[in-house]
Amino acid sequence: MKFSNFFIPTLKENPSDARIVSHILMLKSGMIRQETSGIYSWLPLGYRVLKKIIKIIEDLHELYEVNQILMPTIQSSEIWKKSGRYDTYGKEMLRINDRHSKELLYGPTNEEMITALGKQHIKSYKSLPQYFYHIQSKFRDEIRPRFGVMRAREFLMKDAYSFDINENEGVKTYYRFFRLYLKIFKSMGIPIVPVRALSGEIGGSLSHEFHLIVDSGESEIFLDKSILESDLEKLKDEDLKNLNSFTDEYYKNNKISIKLEKFRSIELGHIFLFGDKYSKSFDFNIEYENKKLTPFMGSYGIGISRIPAAIIEHSSDERGILWPEEVSPFEVVIINLINDSDETNKVSNDLYQNLKSKNIDVIYDDRNERPGIKFSDSDLIGIPIQIIIGKNLINDGNVTLKFRKDGKEINLTNDKVLDIIIKKLKNNK
Amino acid sequence: MKFSNFFIPTLKENPSDARIVSHILMLKSGMIRQETSGIYSWLPLGYRVLKKIIKIIEDLHELYEVNQILMPTIQSSEIWKKSGRYDTYGKEMLRINDRHSKELLYGPTNEEMITALGKQHIKSYKSLPQYFYHIQSKFRDEIRPRFGVMRAREFLMKDAYSFDINENEGVKTYYRFFRLYLKIFKSMGIPIVPVRALSGEIGGSLSHEFHLIVDSGESEIFLDKSILESDLEKLKDEDLKNLNSFTDEYYKNNKISIKLEKFRSIELGHIFLFGDKYSKSFDFNIEYENKKLTPFMGSYGIGISRIPAAIIEHSSDERGILWPEEVSPFEVVIINLINDSDETNKVSNDLYQNLKSKNIDVIYDDRNERPGIKFSDSDLIGIPIQIIIGKNLINDGNVTLKFRKDGKEINLTNDKVLDIIIKKLKNNK
Repeated sequence: MKFSNFFIPTLKENPSDARIVSHILMLKSGMIRQETSGIYSWLPLGYRVLKKIIKIIEDLHELYEVNQILMPTIQSSEIWKKSGRYDTYGKEMLRINDRHSKELLYGPTNEEMITALGKQHIKSYKSLPQYFYHIQSKFRDEIRPRFGVMRAREFLMKDAYSFDINENEGVKTYYRFFRLYLKIFKSMGIPIVPVRALSGEIGGSLSHEFHLIVDSGESEIFLDKSILESDLEKLKDEDLKNLNSFTDEYYKNNKISIKLEKFRSIELGHIFLFGDKYSKSFDFNIEYENKKLTPFMGSYGIGISRIPAAIIEHSSDERGILWPEEVSPFEVVIINLINDSDETNKVSNDLYQNLKSKNIDVIYDDRNERPGIKFSDSDLIGIPIQIIIGKNLINDGNVTLKFRKDGKEINLTNDKVLDIIIKKLKNNK
Repeated sequence: MKFSNFFIPTLKENPSDARIVSHILMLKSGMIRQETSGIYSWLPLGYRVLKKIIKIIEDLHELYEVNQILMPTIQSSEIWKKSGRYDTYGKEMLRINDRHSKELLYGPTNEEMITALGKQHIKSYKSLPQYFYHIQSKFRDEIRPRFGVMRAREFLMKDAYSFDINENEGVKTYYRFFRLYLKIFKSMGIPIVPVRALSGEIGGSLSHEFHLIVDSGESEIFLDKSILESDLEKLKDEDLKNLNSFTDEYYKNNKISIKLEKFRSIELGHIFLFGDKYSKSFDFNIEYENKKLTPFMGSYGIGISRIPAAIIEHSSDERGILWPEEVSPFEVVIINLINDSDETNKVSNDLYQNLKSKNIDVIYDDRNERPGIKFSDSDLIGIPIQIIIGKNLINDGNVTLKFRKDGKEINLTNDKVLDIIIKKLKNNK
């Protein structure tokens, strides 16, 4: 991608209406635009980050053989009356009347719909377990939307649902998704902490949230710090269940007496094993050895559109964003400082074509702008690897490789850049 | 993908509530599920087709350097009051009040929102032209939703928007998108016919629709049949403008006097050059040579979720769907007829792994089902190439390659199957 063809409307000043770092930097780097209270457009740079996150989620759900579907945003009130949540959900549910005065709503979640789907199509115990997921817009009419996409009203969510023949199998499935979640967040390059949580509105007895620790987080979690250093994927199901890490509410509700440290954090995922709550209210039964089997269910959510904001809260400096390369909108930026030099133009362009041909995600800043603007824009948008091409090339045949995170610079001849970058990116993959 | 892990809830009987072939076959093959009137879920098989269509659209928009963004589904009424369409749009617009009684709506289209976005962020004539697109759910509250996803209320649409410095440049951009559309539908393996259309609600003077000719289509178009045989991509802009092909309404409104043939068809795309209608009402002006420049705009839509239905209307037989390989949910299906034979299991599995390793999109029917069910399911879901592995293998070491479209069968030793399939799929790519 060439910068001149790519739409990145960066701002020179901090936006006045944003109070937390991620909201400020997402507006300033031209990632998002507010359309109305709590409702945002994703501009090209922001949407690239979202797509990288979505690809990681899709690839790993496919690896785990979870079937991808797409349920609609608009739902009928009927299924919510069946579960009893139409009355209890409250004002966060956006209720709508269509032209025939039929009651519709913008789905805040999909337990009801997936249960109706299961009841229609799953007729034999032999076809259990079944796992589904979809990535779809949700709407929750927050009374005070704030912090940009962190607490928006319309947001993008991945939610998965499982059907099992009994509780025992349901628990196994639950921990299968638990491990999938550890893998997903690791693949995004962010350290995640699972914490035991209350089930709340959705129901059931077993629930965990997945948090990113940041000082500016809205949540509070309590945990044994050793968890942060351990490789959780290696633990047995039972040990995952007994981890000493809890949400604030769980910690207080269950009067946990062990001494734990308190952290502020952002919730990025939430999984629930709610059992037969919905299958029962939908009268969803399957014949099994001459008895009635009511499928045992769970649901597994990831708040996709708040992840870019959470990562920025976790990783930025005074000059801008520091993307992990796994979700960075581009892996490499080529900064050509002298636009009217045939030599820098040729070397920049050749490097750009070479990196592209190696499937490296590169943006070439070919704009006719001052070096100061190019440097500050590159730092602001946070691409992890910068290749700076300017006077050094003309004088000594050198280009500069600069790492955004620590500012480390290496001068080297341009024929060596390609190998080093390929090696660096491959090592981390 | 193994059939046993993939959720394809095929029906034995024709669904009683569906009247057109595509609706019947999409329900029967387990591609979609109706949630409520005019609102559908896409099940795994259907969603795979949607994703292939989306990938073709994304890849070609990237090739044409159109910036991908994501605008929200819910919009504020304010921007629609600015353009004047809040009152004129009528009952197809789904109007919503939020918890604070603020007027929202579910976007039926995005001209207003993109104009507001352009006005905020495009400050210099130097950054024109600008092209944007997004793929997002839309809602139009049809009075009588029917024909499944063909005339649904919630549907998936690609819409692109362009900003140019003047009409002359706008027209060039318009024909750039015209050519992009020819390429997109060609890449989906379907013959498309562009027809001159009225602009209607959106405004402006230049508009074309892109139609697929099928006897069951809801639209009528008039055209000179020679257009069907010509390579339109090679024509000049002026010749594209003067094609003798028109929508019914355009033909009658403009009292076209030349004799043309009438066809029934389905509209899949619609492009508009509406000029300054929205930029004017949003007071969106840019300084240019000491004068005010009001950007000249166009919009370019594709009805993504009706494309699978249109293709089925165009291409099916009494046994089921006939997918073009470009958008088929899988390119190849391996049908193992004898589940308790080590020999057929091994050969099936090896072939499956080999095809996957060559990046061929293959589904392996490994279910413990009768051959009759496997054959009829494969024919129903319409995968273009079938590899049948049964008694022939045990007796003669042969497998059967069968083409869904013409039923042609070739018996050959299994070591030759791979080469032939790779050659056949590559030829068409």
